[in-house]
Amino acid sequence: MIDVGVIGASGFTGLELLKILITHPKFNINYIATSEGTNSVLDLHPSLCGLLDMSVKKVDIKEIASSSKLVFLALPHKTSMKFAKELLELGVKVVDLSADYRLKLETYEKHYCSHIDKEHLKDAVYGLPEMYREDIKKSSLVANPGCYPTASILGLLPFVDFIDENFPIFIDAKSGVAGAGKKCTESTHYVSINENIFAYAPFSHRHEPEITEKLYLKSGKMFDINFVPHLIPATRGEMIDSYMLLKEEINPILVLKEYYKDEKFIRIFEKPVDIKSCSGTNFCDIFAKVKGKKLYINSTVDNILRGSSSQAVANANLMCGFDEGLGVPTIAYVP
Amino acid sequence: MIDVGVIGASGFTGLELLKILITHPKFNINYIATSEGTNSVLDLHPSLCGLLDMSVKKVDIKEIASSSKLVFLALPHKTSMKFAKELLELGVKVVDLSADYRLKLETYEKHYCSHIDKEHLKDAVYGLPEMYREDIKKSSLVANPGCYPTASILGLLPFVDFIDENFPIFIDAKSGVAGAGKKCTESTHYVSINENIFAYAPFSHRHEPEITEKLYLKSGKMFDINFVPHLIPATRGEMIDSYMLLKEEINPILVLKEYYKDEKFIRIFEKPVDIKSCSGTNFCDIFAKVKGKKLYINSTVDNILRGSSSQAVANANLMCGFDEGLGVPTIAYVP
Amino acid sequence: MIDVGVIGASGFTGLELLKILITHPKFNINYIATSEGTNSVLDLHPSLCGLLDMSVKKVDIKEIASSSKLVFLALPHKTSMKFAKELLELGVKVVDLSADYRLKLETYEKHYCSHIDKEHLKDAVYGLPEMYREDIKKSSLVANPGCYPTASILGLLPFVDFIDENFPIFIDAKSGVAGAGKKCTESTHYVSINENIFAYAPFSHRHEPEITEKLYLKSGKMFDINFVPHLIPATRGEMIDSYMLLKEEINPILVLKEYYKDEKFIRIFEKPVDIKSCSGTNFCDIFAKVKGKKLYINSTVDNILRGSSSQAVANANLMCGFDEGLGVPTIAYVP
Amino acid sequence: MIDVGVIGASGFTGLELLKILITHPKFNINYIATSEGTNSVLDLHPSLCGLLDMSVKKVDIKEIASSSKLVFLALPHKTSMKFAKELLELGVKVVDLSADYRLKLETYEKHYCSHIDKEHLKDAVYGLPEMYREDIKKSSLVANPGCYPTASILGLLPFVDFIDENFPIFIDAKSGVAGAGKKCTESTHYVSINENIFAYAPFSHRHEPEITEKLYLKSGKMFDINFVPHLIPATRGEMIDSYMLLKEEINPILVLKEYYKDEKFIRIFEKPVDIKSCSGTNFCDIFAKVKGKKLYINSTVDNILRGSSSQAVANANLMCGFDEGLGVPTIAYVP
Repeated sequence: MIDVGVIGASGFTGLELLKILITHPKFNINYIATSEGTNSVLDLHPSLCGLLDMSVKKVDIKEIASSSKLVFLALPHKTSMKFAKELLELGVKVVDLSADYRLKLETYEKHYCSHIDKEHLKDAVYGLPEMYREDIKKSSLVANPGCYPTASILGLLPFVDFIDENFPIFIDAKSGVAGAGKKCTESTHYVSINENIFAYAPFSHRHEPEITEKLYLKSGKMFDINFVPHLIPATRGEMIDSYMLLKEEINPILVLKEYYKDEKFIRIFEKPVDIKSCSGTNFCDIFAKVKGKKLYINSTVDNILRGSSSQAVANANLMCGFDEGLGVPTIAYVP
Repeated sequence: MIDVGVIGASGFTGLELLKILITHPKFNINYIATSEGTNSVLDLHPSLCGLLDMSVKKVDIKEIASSSKLVFLALPHKTSMKFAKELLELGVKVVDLSADYRLKLETYEKHYCSHIDKEHLKDAVYGLPEMYREDIKKSSLVANPGCYPTASILGLLPFVDFIDENFPIFIDAKSGVAGAGKKCTESTHYVSINENIFAYAPFSHRHEPEITEKLYLKSGKMFDINFVPHLIPATRGEMIDSYMLLKEEINPILVLKEYYKDEKFIRIFEKPVDIKSCSGTNFCDIFAKVKGKKLYINSTVDNILRGSSSQAVANANLMCGFDEGLGVPTIAYVP
Repeated sequence: MIDVGVIGASGFTGLELLKILITHPKFNINYIATSEGTNSVLDLHPSLCGLLDMSVKKVDIKEIASSSKLVFLALPHKTSMKFAKELLELGVKVVDLSADYRLKLETYEKHYCSHIDKEHLKDAVYGLPEMYREDIKKSSLVANPGCYPTASILGLLPFVDFIDENFPIFIDAKSGVAGAGKKCTESTHYVSINENIFAYAPFSHRHEPEITEKLYLKSGKMFDINFVPHLIPATRGEMIDSYMLLKEEINPILVLKEYYKDEKFIRIFEKPVDIKSCSGTNFCDIFAKVKGKKLYINSTVDNILRGSSSQAVANANLMCGFDEGLGVPTIAYVP
Repeated sequence: MIDVGVIGASGFTGLELLKILITHPKFNINYIATSEGTNSVLDLHPSLCGLLDMSVKKVDIKEIASSSKLVFLALPHKTSMKFAKELLELGVKVVDLSADYRLKLETYEKHYCSHIDKEHLKDAVYGLPEMYREDIKKSSLVANPGCYPTASILGLLPFVDFIDENFPIFIDAKSGVAGAGKKCTESTHYVSINENIFAYAPFSHRHEPEITEKLYLKSGKMFDINFVPHLIPATRGEMIDSYMLLKEEINPILVLKEYYKDEKFIRIFEKPVDIKSCSGTNFCDIFAKVKGKKLYINSTVDNILRGSSSQAVANANLMCGFDEGLGVPTIAYVP
């Protein structure tokens, strides 16, 4: 068993991490922390009653470094890099669920803020196993991808050689509310979401440059990504609909099946996918269709699992030499 | 008061027609029919208790023609044209909510079935007041537009001169479930819709040629429309997100405001629209944004009102010489 | 036309008041205020775009008294009585939607706080028209009932002579989230409500003594009311299920029909009622059933209309000599 | 590994059985059947893609008996007993999820239909482990309890000695829609459930006599159970609110904690429970409160897990000599 810690246990992704780690056969949770600490993890997450009863510490990096081999940071960006830096200097492996190590320095500072850990940023690996599995295995610092980039990139990746770069790619995303976090705001009030749908940050969401950069690094092509996310009246799940032009007509299902033939967390469907069939799991489900040279890619993930916490555990598995799928959820929350 | 009839009163659009007509200051419901008839309209719609209590007839065209000046047909396509033909021949005005008179003969027969009333089809007017108001006023047969075409066309219309026709237009639509009708199927089961979203008929929905044809008739340009509809976990409301390339950069809000400056059922917003703010009304709400030459249009309607029944009543108002907005709902179902 | 004002226009009940008053044939909104004021009512309620565009004042009692004959107070208790007192002293009629004038002094101070307007409290009329219609007509200060008491009392009232007072009455209530107000809290977060249901304040909600007191004042009997409210995953609507023992077996539908035979906002159904059929209206729908001497009463209202704003307008109508139903909504938000 | 079969795999409880059995460490699914059979289980449940791919047989009792030691019957009542009878005669253990073996003959025939397997009915054990654990261990035929009785009885059981039998017990139940099954009907249409709540079969649901009988068999007391179930707009989960009179005042939390101190699938909470915290698990969560001699019991289960399939697996574990919790889900579907 390897001792692991979770910093930032109070939010939805923190809860999902705990839910997975509780039954993980090789990871032992021995440190849970939030910015303020609390008597018991059950104060934060009553649903864990009977499964886990530990105190929640106020973050103390020295203490965690002396007791944990690997730490999950489920924190806001900017806070995260401060802790990551210290942990890495003390020899602790880090899976960072924030945006802090996802982007090249220039991209990061343009879209977020100035970076205080440029040193480690250089060596951070982008934690999308289908892109960087071998690098993840050797890394001490994995930057867990954003939920939108995860589902977008996994849909686009098999087609990068076929897409006509002279035209834009439009991505219309639909997300369950859990992705917006536990904080109560006017737009997460039940009454604002129920019987409603709305776009936010059209053409200006920070996941847009993340998608662009990762596709560039992989393919050498600078695609013109145009991203519009929506909140839908559902708690979890996320759908990505991507629209673009091809250089020539192809059979998209064959392309997908060939590209992902060895991937166990990618499922290719021959009809449109839905979010319910993969909610609760680490799967990314993909369908695609062409009409002439127009390509439609339809991909879904659970935004707080494959889009966050279960992908984080898969990354941790790889970093520790375990099978990628160890303890990672595969049984959907259907019906 | 003008006596009107409703054939096909059992479904959701039939119910919405009745709800509007009950309080309409100039239309008097004096004939309600379904394919089978029933003792009271309250058997079909208990919520009308205390407001309307009439028997529901088994359709009898002669009887209805002798008692009503105008008839709303809230029927499936193919059934509708049979009744419309007879009613028109007996001098009754018709607002047809089905697809039967929406398209040119060739388009119709390609996407639906063979047409049995080619005679009247030639003279039918497409019931989108913002496009054909003057024609509607003079018509005896108005084909009420589909819900998706209504919101799509109203969003696109102001931009037809600016759009680059060499690039496709992608339309990503999201619809509440009432648009799928009252019939219980696997895909309208609560459990299939709740906590879910899925696309259906991507690039092959029958509203795609309707949008293409109407834009062509208005602009003389044959846009390449590519349409992907989704069902979302909401009862009513519909959002259209359209993505395309412009010939040159423009200020889309100014274009919208100028184009619709005299329209009282179009509202232009400077931030993304939501479905809740127009659900329950005949409004079409529109927002748009550009990034360079990429244009994003974001429009919403109530799919069973502006997308069907309230637009039908607005058309009937015009056909009878009344103000377009007479008795048409404008107060949204918020919160 | 009578000029009226709305103080507390930012919340859900304030919005519902505006929605009704906009189309009311006899009331003219000429003053809208909140604690802070804002440039336009559209900042608070974008859905009113095209319908109402007035500035929202920072409350100024003198100003409102000089311009309005009647004022609706949609404010929290304690704040409300301060304004009501001043308005009444300046000769303005008041419909207070808060709890401040609903209860006898002793009951109020036990369950809320000390009362600062004992003078007017004595003369306040409880605004349930089915109980106090004639008094409301003559009153300058009407205390609009709570949503739970409205539906509970209307269900129980016809049975007060038949109920066995030696046994408790259990009331199990289910409420849509809009009743909890616009404020974002952990329990109104979408994720807390969606796919969930929970009781709150069991046997200790402040509407319990309101029900007890009003039944006592009407019947002279002190029933033992035991009230447990729940939040359900719906925006609006409220169901009350009451369980009790009868002194002897009765036909409850006949009792209901006889008792309410002249009431146009009460509908008696012979099968269980649902919240959707009356949401959007001022109706209270009631069903009841017995098994031996056990009585089950099943009543529904729209919690922010009949349970608040539309009942407030009905009361204002009565206070101004108009028909109770003038401008009051009766068409439900079905489907 | 013990080979097991599932007959009736197409519905929601069939799906839940498969989801649990796929990862169960001791049961091996080697036979899946429906009334008609189909090529692959993925035709029925696409979400199992990548996890299970077996053909679905048309039921053949001989074939299943030769290959499975234990069979789960997820079938409608009446159909179930026909298969159970044959399986038992061939020496196969049966967990029956229908009502066929839950009740004494007289009770069964009064509320359902005539029984065709009186022989085995006599020996069937009611599969509520907290009541009959030792009997289940020795049984070949376990009748899995109904969802409502499971949560109702588990809430009431600790209090049977304290309840005043001279007064009725009122049970107000709220159920997610999955409990109504996969069949599409008017009342399971999304539009009927969304933004709605309604009671059905008040005082006449068939789970009422099941609760009465089981409490009588355990306590020797014939309680007067009065049961009113509701459908709520949620897919899964169920809440039971029970109201009754006590003989004397007690501390209900202490009673619950003492009674269930050795039970690992019962969790006692000191504030009202919600359905989300136990959805996805086999837990029954319970809270209770008194006011004088009035007792309120508030219990929740996942209606298709503890109320059906996970309880069935727990029973199968006991029947095969395994630990009751082996492979049974405990991690909730929160957030």
